[in-house]
Amino acid sequence: MRLLLFSLLLLLPAAAQAQLRDQARPNILYILIDNWGWGDIGVQGGSIPTPEIDQLAADGLRLTNFNVENQCTPTRSAIMTGRLPIRSGTHRVTYGQPYGMAPWEFTLAELLNETGYDTALLGKWHLGDVEGRLPTDQGFDYWYGIRNTTDEAGYSSTPQYDPEIVPQPFIWEADAGSAPRKVAPFDLDSRRQIDREIIERAEAYLADPARAEAPFFLMTALTQIHPPLGTHPDFANVSGHGLYSDIITELDANIGRILAALDEAGLADDTIVILTGDNGAVTDGIGGGSNGPWRAGFTGYEGGLRTPAMVRWPGTIEAGRVSDEIFAALDWMPTLATLAGAPELVPDDRPIDGLDASDFLTGASETSPREHVVVFIGDDLFSVKWRSFKIHLKTAEDLYAPVQEYLFPPVYDVAQDPGEENNLMKFTLFAHSWVYVPLGRIVGELTESFTAHPNIPPGAEFEGYPEE
Amino acid sequence: MRLLLFSLLLLLPAAAQAQLRDQARPNILYILIDNWGWGDIGVQGGSIPTPEIDQLAADGLRLTNFNVENQCTPTRSAIMTGRLPIRSGTHRVTYGQPYGMAPWEFTLAELLNETGYDTALLGKWHLGDVEGRLPTDQGFDYWYGIRNTTDEAGYSSTPQYDPEIVPQPFIWEADAGSAPRKVAPFDLDSRRQIDREIIERAEAYLADPARAEAPFFLMTALTQIHPPLGTHPDFANVSGHGLYSDIITELDANIGRILAALDEAGLADDTIVILTGDNGAVTDGIGGGSNGPWRAGFTGYEGGLRTPAMVRWPGTIEAGRVSDEIFAALDWMPTLATLAGAPELVPDDRPIDGLDASDFLTGASETSPREHVVVFIGDDLFSVKWRSFKIHLKTAEDLYAPVQEYLFPPVYDVAQDPGEENNLMKFTLFAHSWVYVPLGRIVGELTESFTAHPNIPPGAEFEGYPEE
Repeated sequence: MRLLLFSLLLLLPAAAQAQLRDQARPNILYILIDNWGWGDIGVQGGSIPTPEIDQLAADGLRLTNFNVENQCTPTRSAIMTGRLPIRSGTHRVTYGQPYGMAPWEFTLAELLNETGYDTALLGKWHLGDVEGRLPTDQGFDYWYGIRNTTDEAGYSSTPQYDPEIVPQPFIWEADAGSAPRKVAPFDLDSRRQIDREIIERAEAYLADPARAEAPFFLMTALTQIHPPLGTHPDFANVSGHGLYSDIITELDANIGRILAALDEAGLADDTIVILTGDNGAVTDGIGGGSNGPWRAGFTGYEGGLRTPAMVRWPGTIEAGRVSDEIFAALDWMPTLATLAGAPELVPDDRPIDGLDASDFLTGASETSPREHVVVFIGDDLFSVKWRSFKIHLKTAEDLYAPVQEYLFPPVYDVAQDPGEENNLMKFTLFAHSWVYVPLGRIVGELTESFTAHPNIPPGAEFEGYPEE
Repeated sequence: MRLLLFSLLLLLPAAAQAQLRDQARPNILYILIDNWGWGDIGVQGGSIPTPEIDQLAADGLRLTNFNVENQCTPTRSAIMTGRLPIRSGTHRVTYGQPYGMAPWEFTLAELLNETGYDTALLGKWHLGDVEGRLPTDQGFDYWYGIRNTTDEAGYSSTPQYDPEIVPQPFIWEADAGSAPRKVAPFDLDSRRQIDREIIERAEAYLADPARAEAPFFLMTALTQIHPPLGTHPDFANVSGHGLYSDIITELDANIGRILAALDEAGLADDTIVILTGDNGAVTDGIGGGSNGPWRAGFTGYEGGLRTPAMVRWPGTIEAGRVSDEIFAALDWMPTLATLAGAPELVPDDRPIDGLDASDFLTGASETSPREHVVVFIGDDLFSVKWRSFKIHLKTAEDLYAPVQEYLFPPVYDVAQDPGEENNLMKFTLFAHSWVYVPLGRIVGELTESFTAHPNIPPGAEFEGYPEE
């Protein structure tokens, strides 16, 4: 059968061949933004103009109910593995302790690489900071960027910082199969420059004639808008509305530059472009982002779960489509596996929590396959969203507040009550306790799965995926 | 060699012989105060005069960064064993459940007793209330006092108290090798008298000619300032500023009486005098103590960790020295083992968390060997202090408040911010997250140690220290 297909291709003109190949195996460009508030884009009510982002949304599908994990590391893990980060010990940001995605986790990059994609990560990783756990160990042919969090850029400017205790962080570069190389110290100065470096490398990558030879998976994991806040000098004071606005302006321009480079290379029609955040914005203190109508970032509330998300695929995804169907960062891995024509490469020896939403994305189905998301923060199940109902088992009012546990979990209907302020259990005197039933079922099934497939602790050093 | 030394000693006059012996094996007098706030002494800003205590501080080394556990039982366990109380099941105060230090824990009293010291405990124990777990089972030749907490004195005055359900508590007396004897019921009346009884027994002990024959370890564990609050009738209304002031006045006078007895017996120059609290003061409700500038007692905050501490050893410890180096209750056991000339008796078959700070105490070193303390409350790690940084994983605002857990642990610099109010993570937007690295390392090493040497549950009945 494969031989027959090959023979037929020989009879087609080159352009048609390319189109056939690209429809089967589209390029994938994932632009990931750090700490991005749902309300920080113009089309979702943001006060700072984001023309490039708004245009991208207009050209594809805008997901208004895209759900991430609550921090950098778990969201990036969810995108890469399609698995709840708590399963793989990547469910929290750790400092000074062994951490990272175990070598036996099978990533989206590995999957695409295995089916013939060229793969590159430009920017932040945050899924391991030792050799064996770097991007080039997990399926990326090339990586330029930082191993951990952008926080590190501020270390050397902190009083009492001691490089003997905590080494000076660096920007790194690596090719698969070779040792990583230090590029430059990562400090407040290079922090302002790094997104420009990422963009220029993305432009070079897209302009490379090699892009015509094989499909590619390029992830540009920009470091904006994560603290320490700062813009490239070219964007200092451009907005006239302060630093945060300057950063959003820089971000929008940078996204425009990547998309322009894709156009110039003639690749736009053959490329699925995904643009999302990794978690909600820091809205208090010297943060300044907006989570739109949603409550409190970095918690179990919608402000920490929902982040801007859009997907463009000319000719396949209808332009201007907007959907409030539930979609999760977990879903990219099985969804993109199908869109890349390799669903059989999704592992079946471990639980995959992501759902294949390819029919939903292409428009073959109006509804996504996902009806719920579970919100773990660290080891604890904070909340569960089921349809439009949110149930909170634990709560923290904001990023800096301590966690509290409910005796009687409140139920909110986020479709009516985006601020999660009106506890239906209180106003209907427990008439809404029927919502506890599907919640209980979700938690019960999860518990069964965790029992059958025990979670792996952070920093685990197993050689292969542990047998049951 | 030993024989030769003995021969030489025969040639020396008796006084010189005594001095030689005492320098090698000084007496140790540990005066332990119950619930003592850092700010409850004059020299640390207390409003109630404490002339005897201030004089003791002036004559020796005052430790302004002396760290205890957060409750009576764990601090007493730490002093006795040099081990984190969570290792030995003595990390919380329990009522009506098996508890106490297991017989195979090796105490400071056992160590000193084994190397020839006479050992006596006058006062509160709180490390076991059954035969086999009393002070005379754990290295003390003699004990007079209460088995548990001073709380018990209030039982019989409580409406609906039923001695059939909870037996009437007693004051006890015991000699090693004999069964303990009931001295008197412990109630609100004897509660007011018991510290006087302790003082008089200490005076008799110090005046006993047997003290010249062997070095001694006397621990006077006074019951003040623990609730139920009350003074000896001689001190009722002496201060003119209420009950708490009366109690502090009594306490200061009692400490003066012990020191005077030491002087009168001619033992002051040969005796290391240690005076500390066991945890911070109860500052709210009917308490009334002061934790000085430090936040909230009985928590992971400095108000619960720091308590007054001073050490006098004429001729060895420089008078008037004050140090803010970190020192922990855990450190007494290995430190005093060295000062008593028997460091080899510190067990090497179990983890000892205390550090030998003898060089720091004697002035051979300006710095203590300790850079951090970990603060467990019950089973939970609440906070870690590393250098002047404090990191809180869990919090409780005061003694009566529920426990909360942080999503993003705050970091305070207690040198700049004794009230632990300014979360550096918030004000520097995570630039201080490098402080998480040494924290993570400390927690990681502790976890490894707990894995290699599993913690023993409260009330465990092992015959010997469990093998790994």
